[in-house]
Amino acid sequence: MKVPAALPLDADRLWADIMALAEITEPERPYTRRSFSPLFLRGRACLAERFTEAGLSVRIDAAGNLIGRREGKNPAHGVIAVGSHSDTVPSGGRFDGIAGVAAGLEVARALRDADVRLDHTLEVIDFLAEEPSDYGLSCIGSRGMAGALDVTMLDMTEPHGETLRAALRRVGGNPDCFATARRNDIAAFLELHIEQGIVLESQSLDIGIVTSIAGIRRIEITFAGAADHAGTTPMALRRDALVAAANTVVAIRRAAERLAAEGPDYFVATVGILTVEPGGANVVPGKCRLVIDARTTNPALTQKFVDEIERESRLHAETARVSRAPLVTLSDGPSAACDPMLRAELHKSANALGLRVTDLASGAGHDTAFMGRICPSAMVFVPCRNGKSHAPEEWADRDQIARGAAVMLQTVRSLDRSLPVVARASGGAY
Amino acid sequence: MKVPAALPLDADRLWADIMALAEITEPERPYTRRSFSPLFLRGRACLAERFTEAGLSVRIDAAGNLIGRREGKNPAHGVIAVGSHSDTVPSGGRFDGIAGVAAGLEVARALRDADVRLDHTLEVIDFLAEEPSDYGLSCIGSRGMAGALDVTMLDMTEPHGETLRAALRRVGGNPDCFATARRNDIAAFLELHIEQGIVLESQSLDIGIVTSIAGIRRIEITFAGAADHAGTTPMALRRDALVAAANTVVAIRRAAERLAAEGPDYFVATVGILTVEPGGANVVPGKCRLVIDARTTNPALTQKFVDEIERESRLHAETARVSRAPLVTLSDGPSAACDPMLRAELHKSANALGLRVTDLASGAGHDTAFMGRICPSAMVFVPCRNGKSHAPEEWADRDQIARGAAVMLQTVRSLDRSLPVVARASGGAY
Repeated sequence: MKVPAALPLDADRLWADIMALAEITEPERPYTRRSFSPLFLRGRACLAERFTEAGLSVRIDAAGNLIGRREGKNPAHGVIAVGSHSDTVPSGGRFDGIAGVAAGLEVARALRDADVRLDHTLEVIDFLAEEPSDYGLSCIGSRGMAGALDVTMLDMTEPHGETLRAALRRVGGNPDCFATARRNDIAAFLELHIEQGIVLESQSLDIGIVTSIAGIRRIEITFAGAADHAGTTPMALRRDALVAAANTVVAIRRAAERLAAEGPDYFVATVGILTVEPGGANVVPGKCRLVIDARTTNPALTQKFVDEIERESRLHAETARVSRAPLVTLSDGPSAACDPMLRAELHKSANALGLRVTDLASGAGHDTAFMGRICPSAMVFVPCRNGKSHAPEEWADRDQIARGAAVMLQTVRSLDRSLPVVARASGGAY
Repeated sequence: MKVPAALPLDADRLWADIMALAEITEPERPYTRRSFSPLFLRGRACLAERFTEAGLSVRIDAAGNLIGRREGKNPAHGVIAVGSHSDTVPSGGRFDGIAGVAAGLEVARALRDADVRLDHTLEVIDFLAEEPSDYGLSCIGSRGMAGALDVTMLDMTEPHGETLRAALRRVGGNPDCFATARRNDIAAFLELHIEQGIVLESQSLDIGIVTSIAGIRRIEITFAGAADHAGTTPMALRRDALVAAANTVVAIRRAAERLAAEGPDYFVATVGILTVEPGGANVVPGKCRLVIDARTTNPALTQKFVDEIERESRLHAETARVSRAPLVTLSDGPSAACDPMLRAELHKSANALGLRVTDLASGAGHDTAFMGRICPSAMVFVPCRNGKSHAPEEWADRDQIARGAAVMLQTVRSLDRSLPVVARASGGAY
């Protein structure tokens, strides 16, 4: 399917930005542009140049975010911001992050080309280090902008000992007045991102409008039995830790399927790590550890899930005559709902463009989760092939990205008319 | 419980032999006396000295077995042999193997002390390298004696490149006329060994009489799904390899419990190895490999088990929408039944001594499995603490070992009267 000629932006120009950034990668492991690395700075220099060509004034804020800005007609209206991130995971893809930055840039260029001057100031943001960085922290830029980064976090170090404070200075941020990165002048934030899942593709849809970004809880369960001889220990006398763990994996899957099917909330749970000790063919497993990753847009479901797994894992441990340590919560991040008004505007824009659209939750984390703490925020997903991301084969079609950007453009224009004026004096409480 | 004063042997002398060998160990990892090592040769020198003190003539056969021999009154009756092995696994115990060699030695001494001269010649054997050796082979001596070692196996090498052929020469064997190790003059073979399980201990029994040594089949099952994002892939769209594997582990346990409970045959099955790829907390398992160790005294049960696991694993793969590679048989060793007449004699002896006795199968492999190919063979198990073996905490009580040796002694004496005369000319076909 061709993009309708009516799309009010240049799909090829947008695609060229993404492909230009893809060239800036560690050659031996495409596509890698790790935050804070020289390649990352080369990528940003390329972006800054294109921001400038688009008529945007360019700066880096105290939190290390690269920002292109076009003043609005009416400063009192505040800012409409669009963006995402240009860093990648190691051996990542060409779209995760940068597609959203390029879409923001294309929105700015299309407005300029159409001689549209907004009442609101427009900012295109490349957030610093959305992916887990070598300093042990993700979403550094959006945390900073949302006032959600404790300054003690600046003392975190990467494996060679450099502090995040020093690294931040190195990329143009200002750790000495980090708090100035916090914003209270943003009236709305929009982010385009590849879906990283297969919902859109499997239903032949163009656009996903994110309802909520799931919270993530990681839970560790450990079973301890007896590492007996696999030949000489009769079945009835065994204390097999893997049998308890396997039954628990089955129970986790069953519980997750049921909670996911109940709807309307998003729920997924995965056992991605399972280790067996001692791990010899002729030894009954004496110890087994598994890690659950549970994500939902409704914290009540996580509680329901954990209660059930607590019960099931205890039961399976008893049946297998092994001990189960108390469940350990390794991490627990809250979910973040997208702004209903912005979502409604995105729907209107997609419909006006004749696109096939659906609501869906994001199982992955995004900068939008932090921006949602200081301003109305929402996200547009575009389809990606086979749902693959964080891998070199990550792929999104030129036309699908252009459709997503067109929805963003349309929505920025309508928000410019409909948004209430931001009260700067409010201190940004949202 | 004290050993009855009536036991016709010296429990302390027997215990002293075992403890003397325990002293001959790598000091930094007790108890290690690896076959072919200098320590192994030191252990054998100690044994040979004690064999000689017991009035036995000592030799090493072409297969490297250390043999102490006392001629019988009637050479035509052939040999009654008793023995086990003096080598250990790395960081093994003080009893696995050597207890059976020492028991054989004590039988010889007790007969001498009682001025009993048998019609049969008595041999006490320390089989070479029962445990898996650095050359990739186990039961080297008993294989050789049974004619079950293909000479091409002598070309196997240890990690530094020494061939088994050279190593065999180094320990006194003769690889050039290896076939001469094969015996056809043995009328009966008996082996005492620690149980390596908890059946005797858990039922407060003194003696186990082995019905059969289980065959071992190792089977590999691999599931391949899709390593998708754990956050963005809805439950219904997953192809989770671990879910298929976990369901299969549960099915294996269920099938093994049922086959074991059916009786009278011994059956155990274990999944001791299970690996998950890529093994990240936030990635749906894309690949899962498990290895089954199934042991039984009745090969028909293995077939029944494999048929069921074939069916179940395919079903669980389909349900999880993953692919399952064909089952791979990694190894398949046959079971070996012990001789019914010898077992009956062992029962009579144990009863005469007032010991609590049971029949049981051996889930572990032993030299007796190979000896059974050339002559009537049987085994006596004595209890070991917590069923632990192949570990420094391996332990068997002085008195329990003495009771087992007394059963051996009594049985050797009764076999000397009851055994049919071996026809040497038969070529040892048994």
